This record gives sequence, structure tokens and C-alpha cells, in this order.
Amino acid sequence: MPTFPKQKPKLNPTDIFKNVRIVLCQTSHPGNIGSAARAMKTMGLNQLYLVQPQKFPDAQATALATGAADLLENVIVTETLSEALTGCAFAIGLSARRRYLSHENVNVREAALQANRIAAAQPIAFVFGTEMSGLTNAELDCCQLLAMIPANPEYSSLNLAAAVQIVCYELRMQALGGVLEGNSNKAYGLDDAAPELATNEDCERFYAHLEETLLHIGYLNPNAPKKLFERLRRLYSRARLEKEEINLLRGVLTLTQVPRKHKKY
Amino acid sequence: MPTFPKQKPKLNPTDIFKNVRIVLCQTSHPGNIGSAARAMKTMGLNQLYLVQPQKFPDAQATALATGAADLLENVIVTETLSEALTGCAFAIGLSARRRYLSHENVNVREAALQANRIAAAQPIAFVFGTEMSGLTNAELDCCQLLAMIPANPEYSSLNLAAAVQIVCYELRMQALGGVLEGNSNKAYGLDDAAPELATNEDCERFYAHLEETLLHIGYLNPNAPKKLFERLRRLYSRARLEKEEINLLRGVLTLTQVPRKHKKY
Repeated sequence: MPTFPKQKPKLNPTDIFKNVRIVLCQTSHPGNIGSAARAMKTMGLNQLYLVQPQKFPDAQATALATGAADLLENVIVTETLSEALTGCAFAIGLSARRRYLSHENVNVREAALQANRIAAAQPIAFVFGTEMSGLTNAELDCCQLLAMIPANPEYSSLNLAAAVQIVCYELRMQALGGVLEGNSNKAYGLDDAAPELATNEDCERFYAHLEETLLHIGYLNPNAPKKLFERLRRLYSRARLEKEEINLLRGVLTLTQVPRKHKKY
Repeated sequence: MPTFPKQKPKLNPTDIFKNVRIVLCQTSHPGNIGSAARAMKTMGLNQLYLVQPQKFPDAQATALATGAADLLENVIVTETLSEALTGCAFAIGLSARRRYLSHENVNVREAALQANRIAAAQPIAFVFGTEMSGLTNAELDCCQLLAMIPANPEYSSLNLAAAVQIVCYELRMQALGGVLEGNSNKAYGLDDAAPELATNEDCERFYAHLEETLLHIGYLNPNAPKKLFERLRRLYSRARLEKEEINLLRGVLTLTQVPRKHKKY
């Protein structure tokens, strides 16, 4: 069985994310707090801060958090954004659109990259404004960078938890270094029961069997078999055949050549 | 047949996204349909398909769609996933975890890249299963690729609309990010004229023809044809068949069924 070397993620998300806070400012709907907690936990984050939430704790927050209720229990509620940023080395404000020229504007992917680099050593925060009007000027003044989600200019109204989801997703993607646990960009995973791929010789034997069969049934012209056959060969080559699949296909070919009266069923 | 201009097409999200469907299968909560519509519109997508939604239309769906109510008005509701994929050249199933070894597994970023390349010329779909249990095996059989959101292994339960948000965000990032303008189209050979991929219906007709032929030659047991046939089906699904290749393969099948004495050569 072919084995692939396991690639180690550059950084461990669990370690980095201890240093990453999600700060929600003056959230109106407690349901959004619950949904944001769920979004965070699905990506492995757990440091949730609430600055003057309108209603919290609240049954709706708990309901929408589903399996992330533990994050709500450990929430830190503060009176001011500045308090929520205590100990932070870097704060990134979220915006659906480009606004303050006074701030460096980057997209959320770039922001996550910068955030993870710093969070490897020091606490950082992503700061989200209210559902209706986003961050105030005073809140922005607490941030060193403005991150934008590249929304549809005609309708940029992301739900608060959806914005949190995207930020946390980008943080996780960056922390994993583009390498998924157990997955890469290649077909099939790297671990456990990867199907055994056919060897080059298996494939060549299959192609020979295929060509013979196609000549037998009169599909290929024996005087000019090349072009059609190469198209088919390319198709199968693209599929990256497994050993077992080769066996199945050769079973079909064998039966194709058997006179019909001998057929099994 | 769609042809690619020799000059690189100037792609913008609006053009590409006309060819991108979001298909939600058997959604339980109408609120999730509304939230998914909102998530789509914030990223500039608008082709929403619902396969057997449990409740739709519904006031809660409309309420949560907020400014994306127009997407709900134009929703296409179907009885089967196959219907929702009519005309599609490529379908990508979403999963929170790695599952079927039979499918190529990629992360959602890679999936969005591949999707946009194909959607530049032909319709494609992202397919989402139910809130509770995801995609069924039968639904996965309609997909050529499995895309994963790299969730926290200890809590991977993304809200449906949150998953839709991430997929649509990645599609938008890819479409805006210049990734389509590079010359890295080698996976599909898009440099000159991209081959036209077979549609979902082309593939289904081929599978029906294949099954009939395998029964005819006695390869499949008519009393228990399922398992072997599904292996073969997945193999071809993985190869992402081109329209012309389907014609070649069906030519082989037709000749396989012709009595040998009539053969051409």
C-alpha cells in the first residue's frame, strides 16, 4: 500500500487559539451570541468576550449555542472594549465595507494570517460591532487593523454569527497551514484505510486487456486503433484507478469476450 | 458547446455565480433556508435549490432571509437531487468530516477553486445534506467531489447556513482573488479550449446504459446488482466525464450488446 508522509501543521490551532479573543460589542440579539459561540467552537476557538451585551445570559443564547454552551459559561462580560482588550497585543476590527482611511484595511484572510503570527506569542482580538451599525469610531480607535469580508456591494449585511464564522474559519485554515488534518489536496486521505492504488503494471495490463476487448467487439479498427483508444486510456488514467477497481473492470472485459450463451445469469 | 475564447476570459463573480447552485437537501428548519439565502446574497450568489424541504415557503424562512427575500421567491424546489442537478456538469457534496474514500476529498478552498473554473462555462452545484445527518449515500453518489470544512474534531457541528456562508465566501474570494487569471489551469487543461463536461443527465443515461449492459453480459446479478455497480459508478464519477467521453463509452456499450456475428471488423 502506498504511504504518504504525514505533513505536520505549522502551528497547533489549540495553542494559538488560547490567545485569540472574539469580542462582540453591544450585541442586540442574544441569539446571535449563542450562534457566534457555536461558530467559534466549530473552528476550535473558545475565548468569547462581550462588551455591554443588551441581554445576557439569555435562554435564546443558550439554545442557539447548542453544543457550545461551555463557551457561554466562560464568557467574560465587560463594560468597555478597552477592558475586553486587556493584555492584548493587537486588535482587529471587522467591517463589511472599506471605511476608515486612518486604518490599514486588509481582507479577512490577510488579517487572520497576521493575527495567528502574533497570537503564537501574545493575545490578540477580533472585534465585532453591533448588528445594525457595526463598530463606532471610539471602538475603531482601539483597533490597529481593519479587516473586511469581501461582501456583495449590493447587499453586504452579513449576520453577526456568520461574520464570526468566516473569521474563525480563516484563523483555522491559516493555523493548519492549508493542510487539513488527515487530508491534503491529493485524492484520498493520508491516514488509515486509504484504498490501494493500482500500480503502473496493473494499469498497463488493464489497458492491454481493454484494447484487446475493444478490437474483439469491433469497436476499434485494427488498422487505426490509436486515437480512440488513447482517449479512453486518458479517461481511466485521470480516475487514478484502485487495485480493486482494476479487478472489477477486467472482470467486465473478460465477460464481454465470453460468447453470450455461456453467460452466467 | 461552450467554447473558451483564446484570450483569458474576464471573469467577474456576477457572471460566474449565474452558474453556481446551492442545493439544500431535505432541510428540516425553514429558518435555516432563510439564513442560507442571506448568506448567499451577501456573497453575490442567488441560485438556490431545495430538494424536498420539510417546510417551505414559511414565514420564518422569510424573516431570517431579511434582505435576501428575492432569493426565496426564485427558489427552485425539486423532488429529487438529480432534478436539482439538471444541466450541471459538476456537483460538490459538503461534509464536516472526511468520510467516503470513494470520493476525492478536498478542503472547501480547493473545492471553490475547482468550482469557479468549471462555472466559468457550465453550471455546477454545491450540495448540502440535512442539519442532522448530512448527505446520504445516494446523494453522495450524485456528487463528483467531497468538500470539507476543516472543523474542530471535537465539535464539528456547523450550522447549515454557516456552512453555506463559508462556501459562498470562498467562492467570492476565489472569484475576486485573481486565482482565475493565472495560468494554473492545468488540472482541467483550460488553457485553450476546455473540454465540455457531461451534464448530470448525460451521466445518468450512461449509468443506465452501463447497468443494462452489465446485466446483459451477466456481470451483474439481476437479483443483487447494487454493490458492484456502485463501485463502478463511483469510479466514473471520480473521472468527471467529458461529453465526448460519454459518447465513446456508450459506443462501447452498444457494441458489447450487439451479437458478435454482426461485428464490423
